[in-house]
Amino acid sequence: MVTCRRIAAVGPYKDLRRASGDVQRGGEVVEVAGVLFPGFVDCHTHAVFGAPRLDDHERRALGEDYKTVAARGGGILQSVRDVRARSESDLAALMQTRVRALLAHGSTTIEVKSGYGLDAANELKQLRAIRQTAAAERAALVPTFLGAHEVPPEFRDHRPDYVRLVCDEMIPAVAREHLAAACDVFCEPGVFDVAETRTILTAAQRHGLALKLHADELEGSGGAELAVALGALSADHLGAVSDAGIRALAASDTVAVLLPATMLFLGKRTQAPARRLVEAGAAIALASDFNPGSSPTVGLPLVMALGVSQLGLRYTEVVSAVTVNAAAALGLAADRGQIAPGFRADLVSWGVSDWREVAYWMGEQLVTAVWTGGSACPLPGGPVSLGLHVKA
Amino acid sequence: MVTCRRIAAVGPYKDLRRASGDVQRGGEVVEVAGVLFPGFVDCHTHAVFGAPRLDDHERRALGEDYKTVAARGGGILQSVRDVRARSESDLAALMQTRVRALLAHGSTTIEVKSGYGLDAANELKQLRAIRQTAAAERAALVPTFLGAHEVPPEFRDHRPDYVRLVCDEMIPAVAREHLAAACDVFCEPGVFDVAETRTILTAAQRHGLALKLHADELEGSGGAELAVALGALSADHLGAVSDAGIRALAASDTVAVLLPATMLFLGKRTQAPARRLVEAGAAIALASDFNPGSSPTVGLPLVMALGVSQLGLRYTEVVSAVTVNAAAALGLAADRGQIAPGFRADLVSWGVSDWREVAYWMGEQLVTAVWTGGSACPLPGGPVSLGLHVKA
Repeated sequence: MVTCRRIAAVGPYKDLRRASGDVQRGGEVVEVAGVLFPGFVDCHTHAVFGAPRLDDHERRALGEDYKTVAARGGGILQSVRDVRARSESDLAALMQTRVRALLAHGSTTIEVKSGYGLDAANELKQLRAIRQTAAAERAALVPTFLGAHEVPPEFRDHRPDYVRLVCDEMIPAVAREHLAAACDVFCEPGVFDVAETRTILTAAQRHGLALKLHADELEGSGGAELAVALGALSADHLGAVSDAGIRALAASDTVAVLLPATMLFLGKRTQAPARRLVEAGAAIALASDFNPGSSPTVGLPLVMALGVSQLGLRYTEVVSAVTVNAAAALGLAADRGQIAPGFRADLVSWGVSDWREVAYWMGEQLVTAVWTGGSACPLPGGPVSLGLHVKA
Repeated sequence: MVTCRRIAAVGPYKDLRRASGDVQRGGEVVEVAGVLFPGFVDCHTHAVFGAPRLDDHERRALGEDYKTVAARGGGILQSVRDVRARSESDLAALMQTRVRALLAHGSTTIEVKSGYGLDAANELKQLRAIRQTAAAERAALVPTFLGAHEVPPEFRDHRPDYVRLVCDEMIPAVAREHLAAACDVFCEPGVFDVAETRTILTAAQRHGLALKLHADELEGSGGAELAVALGALSADHLGAVSDAGIRALAASDTVAVLLPATMLFLGKRTQAPARRLVEAGAAIALASDFNPGSSPTVGLPLVMALGVSQLGLRYTEVVSAVTVNAAAALGLAADRGQIAPGFRADLVSWGVSDWREVAYWMGEQLVTAVWTGGSACPLPGGPVSLGLHVKA
């Protein structure tokens, strides 16, 4: 961990020289060609996992839906079996290469959820793997507890006991060890209903955790409204958000986090109603949803291109969606996501001549340099291995 | 240009040593970790252009359709004005960086169409820029004449004269200078109708050019059927192909070239009926359609991921779609697209542990090494600048 330095001043070079005197005192001048953005904030990922779920991808292609894939042994529970079988240090090692790949695409702050453990020991193991990775890596990691990602198989016949386990054991343990900044729940018919979600998030709030919510992803069920009612930082997915949910979000500080790469990778032909959310007055963030089942999407630039092409957002809107608004979705709006005095000196330079190109060249790696907390980060000199067991 | 070497033999190392004796005679042994594929064939691009069309992207996002964007000065004609104003060497220089980016994502053979000139001098200028780039670069470039990409503004009131110009001046000149391997036409209501397309392609055939066809992209108009009737190498796009078109393709050697990144980038919610084409028995290829207006998509891996997620193809199908079938779409099926004796030694190694990961990690650069014609290609050490005027 390097000391986090902050931006002292912003302005024309000659004014900065006069104001800071830093250059005269031995400060370093770095010339950058192209465009400088604040480091992007990826505010929704599940980046602590084991193997990619390649079979799921092909099964869906051939017509099996999300729930059928799950019923056949794929889906979230496949990653749960995988994560339960791995050690904390194995998970941290896998996570390191993946976090470096996200950083290399411009994300300097990355939220990471647990949720492939689904019992106290394994949820805590995931969160500790995040902490271990955070201590070693240059991207800032923001951990979220997602014990209510799915009901584990051993509780399928007595779901209320699992909700109690989350509330009475996992949340207190997470809070005690300061392992997460927020608590998230997958609120969706067939996963956790609105009443169960409310119970879990209320318990989390009592333990001082901020709230987030997987809401209305595939079916509208009042998730967005619940997020607003509880004062959650964000309601995420929103593929099927209702008109009432849009109105509620627009009248609140809860950020609408949209994940267009997920809908794409799942083979959906619909997307969240981004334009209607913006026009109603909701704050929109975009995130990768990086995970092994529904979004093995490495970088925010591709998500931004989808934001324009598939969500109907303006270029300016997709930039604020991965900077100021994404920071707000993590409760960090006063700390990062802007190039402004007092903000973290997280900066990324891009090899483009027009800033809009970042959300245009689909699938290209355009980052030329990254600084976190004021210090330059080493970037991988070539391709990164994201899977398992490939030697360089 | 390096001498093109071919694959001598394929098999277990010990058998190769015995058979070739090459190692003993000073041949070099290269160990590769990960997965080796034949170099991919990108069989449909418009890679010779000037500036990116960023405004078009945002206009479409805000609800303007393809034709409205064109009517307001964007669209293909914007690139035509741009290309007409540039010199051959300027176009070649821009093209070099873009071809290197495509190569770095695994495409060792790249078809490139003219079609932003729309008069004899500028169409020939584009094709000569392709020839100039081909002489300098390591990817194999396959030029296609697309003078009938659009009717230029100066012929809007006397379209038949433009068709005559294409047939009587441009095609003979292209054939005389051996500037293209094939002739393509944008056959679409509002662009060139089926009768005009037939006239142009018949002229091209008389001059010894192979045939390709932009067919049924946005509206079905019999393009696929015409492609088959004329024995075209490929019918491309096919977003709105009819049942009769599918049956015709299935009963023919004409390859169905699908361009899912284009539909995505244009904000369409539909895709070509890939599964129905496969099940009818058509040969499917996938291509990037790399161009500044509707698909600034750099690599085939992202297109392959879309092939699975959005077109419902199997992993095996997307691999043959960018190798053997894509080679067939260029009339080169006996020459490249396979790791087999006698084929061009175009090879790409990928930093993955499971070959399917190439079509899975969306937006990541996974290529670790490229060989064309048996020789290793230098890959960019960092990001490539694809726009205009960015200094390194």
